[in-house]
Amino acid sequence: MEIINRFQSSFLEYLKNQKFEKTPQELYNPINYIMEMGGKRLRPMLVLLGQYLFDEDIAKSMPLAYCVEMFHNFSLVHDDIMDQASIRRNQPTVHAKFGLNAGILSGDVMLVYVYDYISKIEDATVLPKLLQCFNKVAVQVCEGQQMDMNFEQQDEVALNDYITMIELKTSVLIAASLQLGAINGHAPVKDQKHLYEFGRSMGIAFQIQDDLLDIYGNAEKFGKQVGGDIIQNKKTYLVSKALEIAPAQIRKKLKALYTTPGLDPQEKIENVLSIFDVLNIQTLVGIEKSRFQNDALSHLNAVNASKEKKLLLEQLAFSLLDRES
Amino acid sequence: MEIINRFQSSFLEYLKNQKFEKTPQELYNPINYIMEMGGKRLRPMLVLLGQYLFDEDIAKSMPLAYCVEMFHNFSLVHDDIMDQASIRRNQPTVHAKFGLNAGILSGDVMLVYVYDYISKIEDATVLPKLLQCFNKVAVQVCEGQQMDMNFEQQDEVALNDYITMIELKTSVLIAASLQLGAINGHAPVKDQKHLYEFGRSMGIAFQIQDDLLDIYGNAEKFGKQVGGDIIQNKKTYLVSKALEIAPAQIRKKLKALYTTPGLDPQEKIENVLSIFDVLNIQTLVGIEKSRFQNDALSHLNAVNASKEKKLLLEQLAFSLLDRES
Repeated sequence: MEIINRFQSSFLEYLKNQKFEKTPQELYNPINYIMEMGGKRLRPMLVLLGQYLFDEDIAKSMPLAYCVEMFHNFSLVHDDIMDQASIRRNQPTVHAKFGLNAGILSGDVMLVYVYDYISKIEDATVLPKLLQCFNKVAVQVCEGQQMDMNFEQQDEVALNDYITMIELKTSVLIAASLQLGAINGHAPVKDQKHLYEFGRSMGIAFQIQDDLLDIYGNAEKFGKQVGGDIIQNKKTYLVSKALEIAPAQIRKKLKALYTTPGLDPQEKIENVLSIFDVLNIQTLVGIEKSRFQNDALSHLNAVNASKEKKLLLEQLAFSLLDRES
Repeated sequence: MEIINRFQSSFLEYLKNQKFEKTPQELYNPINYIMEMGGKRLRPMLVLLGQYLFDEDIAKSMPLAYCVEMFHNFSLVHDDIMDQASIRRNQPTVHAKFGLNAGILSGDVMLVYVYDYISKIEDATVLPKLLQCFNKVAVQVCEGQQMDMNFEQQDEVALNDYITMIELKTSVLIAASLQLGAINGHAPVKDQKHLYEFGRSMGIAFQIQDDLLDIYGNAEKFGKQVGGDIIQNKKTYLVSKALEIAPAQIRKKLKALYTTPGLDPQEKIENVLSIFDVLNIQTLVGIEKSRFQNDALSHLNAVNASKEKKLLLEQLAFSLLDRES
């Protein structure tokens, strides 16, 4: 992972130098706040690795790495408003700290800067391809967020719809980060597609992992309350899977647990968990997660690049899947 | 104006064909709603004319014309949220009709589509220049909106700051619309700049005109209450000018009118108006408006294009300045 650590440091150095010192400060302070808040910086690493597979001069992809990180943070700022979330990464969200209007407008200008950073790629043969890839994904991320909000109004979400939602909301940006790097590294279209598919499947696996961890994770290590998703009636892979396979009787019981208001939280978690146990949900969902991982790996294998370099990508992905469990 | 009418029809035809029939509907219905709500469609006309001066095949600028109209509407959707405005063009604003979250997210995806439409310009020599021009202006529009919101918290706004704000919030997009068309028409940089300056000064004149009309307009024709800006303590060109030139005594009186809560609205308007009369504000501001118009015209004259074509642009601009008075 030495190379990845080096990429990580280079990116953080680049990011530090992008600090917005412009006026009006009310517009730019929130951007500096969220961009410096931390996070795994996964997407920029994927951009750099996506290029590195085909071209080792990664400095030229720094604006793209920054662009996807900024887009990710833009979406967090606006999503937190829509979800009325007041805490992110253990700190106040942008709108909680700076107000609703600052959250909206700073997010907007971040999205403009996202494109400003893409536009820094001077290679005229590459720029239209980058835009085409990014525009498509940026639209999909918004569609995913809308689906997620729609799900809140529904009693139940079909597993396929849930997968579509997490694909749009989360995994296409992971996939596109790799593809943007690959495009900038002049990778053949075939390899770009395999990388994209690697990222897409891996992104779904990440989300399934998140859903599993909410219940079966090491609470202390994970730093979150066990069963938080259940208390909030959140539609997750687990509950959609459970509703899909449960016999009528159990199905009815599970649905009641998710639609009856005022249940005791601890009791509710225990009842849902015992249904999940009867249905063997942890194992079944674990198998499906592995299926997405395997699908991802077969696409990575098909990429025409050095084994050593591809291993870096595999290690990065698996370290993320392991780290939080 | 026959040519302009033809451009107008072509654009409206193009716009009709861009209707979003995609899912999730909750995301796309608000976009169709605002894009079909009407408006003067000034900015797209400026894109088409900007190209027409140098290249008559305007069909190729339609995506750019649509892009600036969409950007303008995106900014209206988000500004209406920030300004808590519930009515626009005599209809409910997007967030009033569809909710806050729909307003935020639909606005976001509109901004992505703005770039998607720019990206439709396939000429690889032109695309980076279009992006450079547009990115700069899109940032400025956000900065202008932030300044405008900051002004609400201030008792008084210096005239120069007010001009900077309207320049950023309103006139740079008018200027850039012309420049984008000119870039796509392969105009020399010198001519692009003169066109940009024409639009910039004309945009400031438009806003001064708006400020004048709030008080001195024909209320019936204008369709708004006379003095609405005064009731709302809105910082306008008129009040900033008045505060700049008023002797200490009058200055104090005017400031009190704008900072004392609970005044009778009709009385307040009359008192402000009588101060404006004493200071000869209508004439003075009218002169400054003309100065911006003249500045605009001198830049238009300097553009190296046919007199007949430039006359179209002049007529369009002046019809807007006359129409509402």
